Amino acid sequence: MSIPVSKDQLTETRQLITPHIHQTPVVTNRSLNDLTRSNLFFKCECLQRTGSFKIRGAVNAVLTLSQEEQKRGVVTHSSGNFAQALACAASKQRIKSWIVMPQNAPDVKKTATKGYGGEVVECAPTLIDREATASNIMEQYGAVLVHPYNQYPIIKGQATAAMELVSEVEHLDYLLAPVGGGGLLSGTALACSYFSKGTKVIGAEPLGADDAYQSFYSGTFVPQTNPQTIADGLRTSLGNLTYPIITQLVSEIITVTEQEIIEAMILFWSRTKILIEPSSAVPLAAVIGNPHLFAEKRVGLILSGGNVEIKPAWFQR
Amino acid sequence: MSIPVSKDQLTETRQLITPHIHQTPVVTNRSLNDLTRSNLFFKCECLQRTGSFKIRGAVNAVLTLSQEEQKRGVVTHSSGNFAQALACAASKQRIKSWIVMPQNAPDVKKTATKGYGGEVVECAPTLIDREATASNIMEQYGAVLVHPYNQYPIIKGQATAAMELVSEVEHLDYLLAPVGGGGLLSGTALACSYFSKGTKVIGAEPLGADDAYQSFYSGTFVPQTNPQTIADGLRTSLGNLTYPIITQLVSEIITVTEQEIIEAMILFWSRTKILIEPSSAVPLAAVIGNPHLFAEKRVGLILSGGNVEIKPAWFQR
Repeated sequence: MSIPVSKDQLTETRQLITPHIHQTPVVTNRSLNDLTRSNLFFKCECLQRTGSFKIRGAVNAVLTLSQEEQKRGVVTHSSGNFAQALACAASKQRIKSWIVMPQNAPDVKKTATKGYGGEVVECAPTLIDREATASNIMEQYGAVLVHPYNQYPIIKGQATAAMELVSEVEHLDYLLAPVGGGGLLSGTALACSYFSKGTKVIGAEPLGADDAYQSFYSGTFVPQTNPQTIADGLRTSLGNLTYPIITQLVSEIITVTEQEIIEAMILFWSRTKILIEPSSAVPLAAVIGNPHLFAEKRVGLILSGGNVEIKPAWFQR
Repeated sequence: MSIPVSKDQLTETRQLITPHIHQTPVVTNRSLNDLTRSNLFFKCECLQRTGSFKIRGAVNAVLTLSQEEQKRGVVTHSSGNFAQALACAASKQRIKSWIVMPQNAPDVKKTATKGYGGEVVECAPTLIDREATASNIMEQYGAVLVHPYNQYPIIKGQATAAMELVSEVEHLDYLLAPVGGGGLLSGTALACSYFSKGTKVIGAEPLGADDAYQSFYSGTFVPQTNPQTIADGLRTSLGNLTYPIITQLVSEIITVTEQEIIEAMILFWSRTKILIEPSSAVPLAAVIGNPHLFAEKRVGLILSGGNVEIKPAWFQR
C-alpha cells in the first residue's frame, strides 16, 4: 500500500492551521533526564488550546469543509477531548456543531463542551446508540460527520504536533506518542517519515487497552473490546485508515501497566509542575520501563493532553 | 526611615544571581482574564529551580558570603521551600549546609532537602528548639546563619522576580505578592519603587494568618500566633527588616479565606495546566474577590511556588 498522505499535504495543513492553534512549548527537565539517562523532549500539547492536541485535527477538518458544508454544520460523537476540540474549532468559524455524548459522561465534560459553543446531544451509553444519534443529526440537519480520528483531515492535523517538534529539535532517535484510535500516532509517523527520517516512531499503549499492540504484532486488525485503563483517551479501537499507516511507518508498540502510568504521571507533575492527563503519561512510562532502548538516546514524547481532574493530597483526609 | 536597599544594589543582585536561576516565564490566560475582567500577568516562580522563588534569595545569600564564610558553611531553620532552596544554592557552590527541621516535617520535604545536598538536622517542633539547634550548629561548626526572609541579601534576591516581571511587562497598575515573612513582598515593593513607579504593590494574605494585615493597618508590629491556613508558606510572622519596608512601600494588604484559596488554586490548575501551591493562589484569590479594584486593570501576580502534593481526583474513591 502506498502512503495516503503526501509531504506537501502535511506542509499545507500546518500552514493552514497554525494561525488557529498554539505553538506549544517543548520542555526539557534535568531530573527526568538523569532518572532515565536519556535526553527527553516533551512536546506540551497539554498546554494546547482546549487542553489537548485534538484541536489540531478539528481545526483542519473544519477549515477544509466546503462553504456549503460549513453552512450545514458538523457532528461528532465523543465524550473526551475531541468533543471540546470540535466545538471550539467550529464555533471560532461560526459553524454549528452537535456533539453526541453518552448520558453518563461527566458533567464537567458536558459543561466544557457547551462552554466552547457546542450543542451537546445526549444518548444511551452504547456504540450503537451513539452512531444512531449522530446519523439522525446528519439526516435531520445535513450535518457533516467529523470522526475523532479515522479521517484524513484529522490525521493530517494531528501530524502537525510532531512536525513542530522535529523542526525545533533535531536528530531525535525516537519519538513516542500514545495510541488509542491512532490519529495522533499515524500523524506522528507520517510527519517523521517526511521531516525526520532518522527518527523511529513508537506507539505507547496501556496494557489494559492493547488493541494496537495486538493488531501490530499479529498483522490482523484486532478491535478493542472491554478496555480497562485510567488513560481514558486511549480506550478506542484503531480505525481502518489509521491502522495501515501505523503498520507501515511505526517501528514498535510498547505496552505499560496502570501502575506504571500513574507513577509516571505523578512523577511528571512533581518534577515539571505541568499537569498531564493519564494518556500523556503513557509514553513516559514506556521510556522509564525500557532503559535498554532509550538510555543515552534523544527521545521526543508527545504529551497529548492535560485534561485531568486533580485535588490536593490533603483533601478528604 | 529611609529605604535600606538602593536601586544599584538591586541591579547588582540581579546581575549576580541571573546565571544561577531560571528566568521564569510570564503566563497569560484568556479564560482567567475573561473571568476577572482584568489583564493578568502571572510570574511563574512555580517553575523556578527547586519549585519556588526562594532560590533567588538563597543564591544571593550564598554568593555574597566571604570566602572565609563559605568555608564554614551555612545553616537555616525551615521546613518549607527555603530548606530546599538553601541546600541547592549551597551545594552548587560546594558549600556545606545544615538545615534544621522539626521532627514532624513531612518525609517528602526531608528527602527533597537531602536530595539537594543539605544535611537535615531534626529538632523538636517548637520555635525555641529550632533556634537552639541552629545556634548549636553555628557554635560547633562556625556555620553562618541564613534566615529564610529577614536578611537584606534574601530580600534583595527575592526582589529580582518582580524586576524580571516589570522589565518584561510594562505599565502594570498593580502587582500582587503573597505575604508570610515578607521577604517576597518587601522585595517586590522595593523593585517596583525603583523600576515601575506607577505600579501599586499589594500583599495578599490568608485570613487565618493575617499578622501582616494586622500590623499594616494598626501601625504596630503584631506577631503571628497560631496560624490556621493551608497556605503553609505564609504561616510565619513578618520580620523586623521586612515590616518597615512593607509599611513604607506597599499600598494595601488584602486577606482571603481558605475556601477562596482552594477555589483559586483549583481554577488556576484547570485553566492553565500549571501546578501552583496554595500560597501562590492567594494573590489570585484576592483579585477574584475584589473586582472593584482590579477590573479593567493590568495586574501582575507572583506565583511564589509549585511544591504541592496532589493526586488524581479518582484516587481513593
